[in-house]
Amino acid sequence: MDYRDLPIRDDLRELTPYGAPQIDVPYPLNTNENPYGPPPELVADLARAVTEAATTLNRYPDRDATELRKDLADYLAGACHSHGLTVRNLWAANGSNEVLQQILQVFGGPGRSAIGFEPSYSMHRLIALATATEWVSGLREGDYTLDADKAIAAIERHQPNIVFLTSPNNPTGTAMELDVIRAVLKAADGVGAMVVVDEAYFEFARPGTPSALTLLPEHPRLIVTRTMSKAFAMAGARVGYLAADPAVIDALLLVRLPYHLSALTQAAARTALRHVGALLGTVDAVKAQRDRIVEELTALGLPVVPSDANFVFFGVPGGDQQGLWRRVLDHGVLIRDVGIPGMLRVTAGTEPETTAFLNALKESL
Amino acid sequence: MDYRDLPIRDDLRELTPYGAPQIDVPYPLNTNENPYGPPPELVADLARAVTEAATTLNRYPDRDATELRKDLADYLAGACHSHGLTVRNLWAANGSNEVLQQILQVFGGPGRSAIGFEPSYSMHRLIALATATEWVSGLREGDYTLDADKAIAAIERHQPNIVFLTSPNNPTGTAMELDVIRAVLKAADGVGAMVVVDEAYFEFARPGTPSALTLLPEHPRLIVTRTMSKAFAMAGARVGYLAADPAVIDALLLVRLPYHLSALTQAAARTALRHVGALLGTVDAVKAQRDRIVEELTALGLPVVPSDANFVFFGVPGGDQQGLWRRVLDHGVLIRDVGIPGMLRVTAGTEPETTAFLNALKESL
Repeated sequence: MDYRDLPIRDDLRELTPYGAPQIDVPYPLNTNENPYGPPPELVADLARAVTEAATTLNRYPDRDATELRKDLADYLAGACHSHGLTVRNLWAANGSNEVLQQILQVFGGPGRSAIGFEPSYSMHRLIALATATEWVSGLREGDYTLDADKAIAAIERHQPNIVFLTSPNNPTGTAMELDVIRAVLKAADGVGAMVVVDEAYFEFARPGTPSALTLLPEHPRLIVTRTMSKAFAMAGARVGYLAADPAVIDALLLVRLPYHLSALTQAAARTALRHVGALLGTVDAVKAQRDRIVEELTALGLPVVPSDANFVFFGVPGGDQQGLWRRVLDHGVLIRDVGIPGMLRVTAGTEPETTAFLNALKESL
Repeated sequence: MDYRDLPIRDDLRELTPYGAPQIDVPYPLNTNENPYGPPPELVADLARAVTEAATTLNRYPDRDATELRKDLADYLAGACHSHGLTVRNLWAANGSNEVLQQILQVFGGPGRSAIGFEPSYSMHRLIALATATEWVSGLREGDYTLDADKAIAAIERHQPNIVFLTSPNNPTGTAMELDVIRAVLKAADGVGAMVVVDEAYFEFARPGTPSALTLLPEHPRLIVTRTMSKAFAMAGARVGYLAADPAVIDALLLVRLPYHLSALTQAAARTALRHVGALLGTVDAVKAQRDRIVEELTALGLPVVPSDANFVFFGVPGGDQQGLWRRVLDHGVLIRDVGIPGMLRVTAGTEPETTAFLNALKESL
């Protein structure tokens, strides 16, 4: 029997399951993971924390993850000078995907719509579909930046309930000017929409890039989402979070599954936050390899999008990105074809991984 | 600002967040946890498994949790003689709540409906609401059993897309006859509905109670959900699962959030399944205390519902369950008022915990 023989929702029939290929290769540079594993002292600390949590694993976890949310508020205070944030401004879930799903369940849903400016993180659209929220595809410029006036016009025309911005943008890599975000916030206020700024890659932004967190005090309908999967090198632990007005967190409580965040996840995330220095110490190394990729691809004459993330989006000479993707894979290097003709995305790895990519690319061009 | 000032979905405005009170008391007998913590050898094994998983925590987990699903299939084969089940029949998520949400997202949604026979597990209704699925409240008999003819009539009248059965039922405790489930399956087939049998408490059922798993081979629209939170004593790890036709799992892939199950969760669940003997060794002790509660409350003259679960649902003389709940709590024993007038639910604890409850109850009556 095929799943289409089952009585699934009609509007899901066109979908195919999300998923980058999970292929076992020497150089996995396709899902924007941090190439550096957790330092040994974090692993040891994690083992201790998990062992302690395991002794009471027969009990449900703290349903509101209060201590973890306090730690996240402290992290943002330290890293982003967002000193006004407290536990009541923070929320966490199993990856930023679950955070996004909760947002779409509360503020989207049937008869409502969300807009994003594409190409962008494809899960915004996919989770909108899964939550029966109509998706509106806004457009970016040819250089993948967002034109504020066009964004405002799109918001006024479509009157969405949620506006998604992604900064730094995925898969293209560039962070957004704060003035653009401010303009979108104003337009969104005009139509009563929530604004989600997805800052999953923010820690990799170039110096001087301001975070949308700084706009929170004046904008109660602004939600800034973050993740521990990228700069924090904890993709396997699945911890995403957001900062917003406490009323937003109260609203999310209406749809969050009770006990959604396990005792082990809470313990692991809190442990990682105690090692924030060591974890974020990898960021500069990753950024150096990212800048190296930008430079070398530019020197090869390829069009390259400026990157504030841990990946680089580049143009393929001749436009056959599927062929180049395959030839690079033949060298053991897995990069990402996000389905945009003539473009590929590569994650910045360690120095040897990045070298392997650059060599594979040169031989494949 | 209040969350109602935000543009939340209109149909969520009537809701209040789900949640049993999380109160720190000597005797927590309100959320049907297993009172026995994991054995030391499991904790040690878990520490090893998590330490190993932690060394590659910068990488995303196996998106399809293949090894865990294999282990779950093996467990069901051993424990329930469900030998035909393989990895393709199993699916797992963060608690059975997330399993249920995925089912409702795929087979429910706007313009669709689900029926449950109440009182039953309240999350069925709440997750239906969150996924914009219309909820139909079917009724049980005065003794909380389900009358097959009335269930069939309700299904034919309402033509739901999903039928929820709960066996053993929560909060009432009694398992369902297989003939009732068969009759419901036939009626559901007649209207093209999926049938979910929630067997969260199945391991505590009285001897000879058959599982709906035995009906899977002939019923491709049947889904049996289970959890590791109860008999497995792993509520803190948040692992729920289901068994169904492989086509059902393929359908769930359309809405499951990618990488929804962390590497730590997968490692913890697989570790627990290696200690299945020790974990399920607590089941008989829990059942003995459950039977003791049934006997003693019956001897006190209280109406008691027959229980196949790790809890007992009983009537309060005079009908003031809120008053009795409070007086029992004053003795340090937290039980559950599920909002059904004149009724309370108590989880079977260890022998001393159960004694504390019985003493508190006698002094409070």
